[in-house]
Amino acid sequence: MIGIFDSGLGGLTAVKEIRRLFPNEGMIYFGDTGRVPYGTRSKEIIRKYALQDMRFLISKSKELSAVLVACGTVSSVALDALKDNFSIPIIGVVNPTAETAVKTTKNGIIGIIGTSATIKSGAYEKRITELAPAAKTVGIPCPLLVPLVENGFIAPDNEVTRLVVKQYLAPIKAAGADTLILGCTHYPIIAGIIAAEIPGVALINSGLEAAKTLAPYVKNDSKCGDVRYFVSDNPDNFSHIASIFLEEKADIVAEKVDIENY
Amino acid sequence: MIGIFDSGLGGLTAVKEIRRLFPNEGMIYFGDTGRVPYGTRSKEIIRKYALQDMRFLISKSKELSAVLVACGTVSSVALDALKDNFSIPIIGVVNPTAETAVKTTKNGIIGIIGTSATIKSGAYEKRITELAPAAKTVGIPCPLLVPLVENGFIAPDNEVTRLVVKQYLAPIKAAGADTLILGCTHYPIIAGIIAAEIPGVALINSGLEAAKTLAPYVKNDSKCGDVRYFVSDNPDNFSHIASIFLEEKADIVAEKVDIENY
Repeated sequence: MIGIFDSGLGGLTAVKEIRRLFPNEGMIYFGDTGRVPYGTRSKEIIRKYALQDMRFLISKSKELSAVLVACGTVSSVALDALKDNFSIPIIGVVNPTAETAVKTTKNGIIGIIGTSATIKSGAYEKRITELAPAAKTVGIPCPLLVPLVENGFIAPDNEVTRLVVKQYLAPIKAAGADTLILGCTHYPIIAGIIAAEIPGVALINSGLEAAKTLAPYVKNDSKCGDVRYFVSDNPDNFSHIASIFLEEKADIVAEKVDIENY
Repeated sequence: MIGIFDSGLGGLTAVKEIRRLFPNEGMIYFGDTGRVPYGTRSKEIIRKYALQDMRFLISKSKELSAVLVACGTVSSVALDALKDNFSIPIIGVVNPTAETAVKTTKNGIIGIIGTSATIKSGAYEKRITELAPAAKTVGIPCPLLVPLVENGFIAPDNEVTRLVVKQYLAPIKAAGADTLILGCTHYPIIAGIIAAEIPGVALINSGLEAAKTLAPYVKNDSKCGDVRYFVSDNPDNFSHIASIFLEEKADIVAEKVDIENY
């Protein structure tokens, strides 16, 4: 059984990848919808929230073999704090994604898009430079992409999202990047718009790269790959939004958690 | 001394109006930057946060003569809960704004833009219909406008904001509204873009209308109209963002509050 948490519902794109890779693994998902977004907040607040999220997941099951931190922001600024406080294996998105990006690039120029906190942390740049000291990185904070995706501005021909993406990607395009890290779980939903604005670039999906590294922890403990979903705000609208991120029509329910008590 | 609180820093547009109307009044401002936005959250969470915000303001000064709830979302869904729990006069933005809109309209068609929670509450529509039963209202939730303003997409010729505003206002324009309520403190910052998309409409600024009703509570207790600012996330970037909302270059500091303890 794998635990997954995210600042909101974007982490469901990682659930989708885990289910595709390991169809018989049970999962518990927590989305902190009552306190989303994390990416605009300070490091101290993000760490506090991340510790509460972990305590909640661990409280729900003794069967957890690992926890995937789907949130790019938490992976970038709070993974060390989580590892210091818990003994269970904790997988962030930064290292596996940076490793794949380094293997993928041919010209050594890697673009990174993420939340403000993720880019400010320099976590992707640090790992890439450890692996490939000559690599050049261009990190751009894209704070509007999360609200655009969450408000349904996701059609491939959406003019607003296209304009915003074009503006954010301009410095990455100008630098000649051949590889682009989608450093936030929301971004795969608009991968088509992103790819169209920077033709020929290899997109690296952080949720997918992190999911691949779960193999050693998979127990195949659920015939149907059951997922229990928890959120911290009213779950009434969960099924509708979840179906966008899971990219399937699903009638799924989430349970409400009072996360501040953890 | 007047207390003002908002989900974030948008309420500073109300501080600006109060200072203009009552230049010798002291103020205490709390912006819940650690938990912004409120407008996408459930009623229960918004009420809980609003009670904490009030308890904090009251704890900071025994001199408060009234509290202005600058937040359109709290004014729409939690004002009754605040009034049930505190004896100090509490002024929300909905009633004064609705009253001015009814006095302003000539054709009886009033548009309302606000957060998802504000529009879902129907608070403006209810008050308008009480005052003018024949009035027609068109309320449209505009969840992207807050992140656009907070991320600086505010220049009068910003193409992204113009496109988003155009899309949101289309049903209000089609209905023939001659009056438009800016039901969120962030919107006056892009009033020019809004006005250009719906020419000839009268814009009603909720922060200004609420500020006007403070006259009976003003004590002129501060020669310089001093304001103490408090926020719930890291205040490092406060001065920069505050100067956007106050529309002045100001070197101002905010103190950090652990709001969850209230």
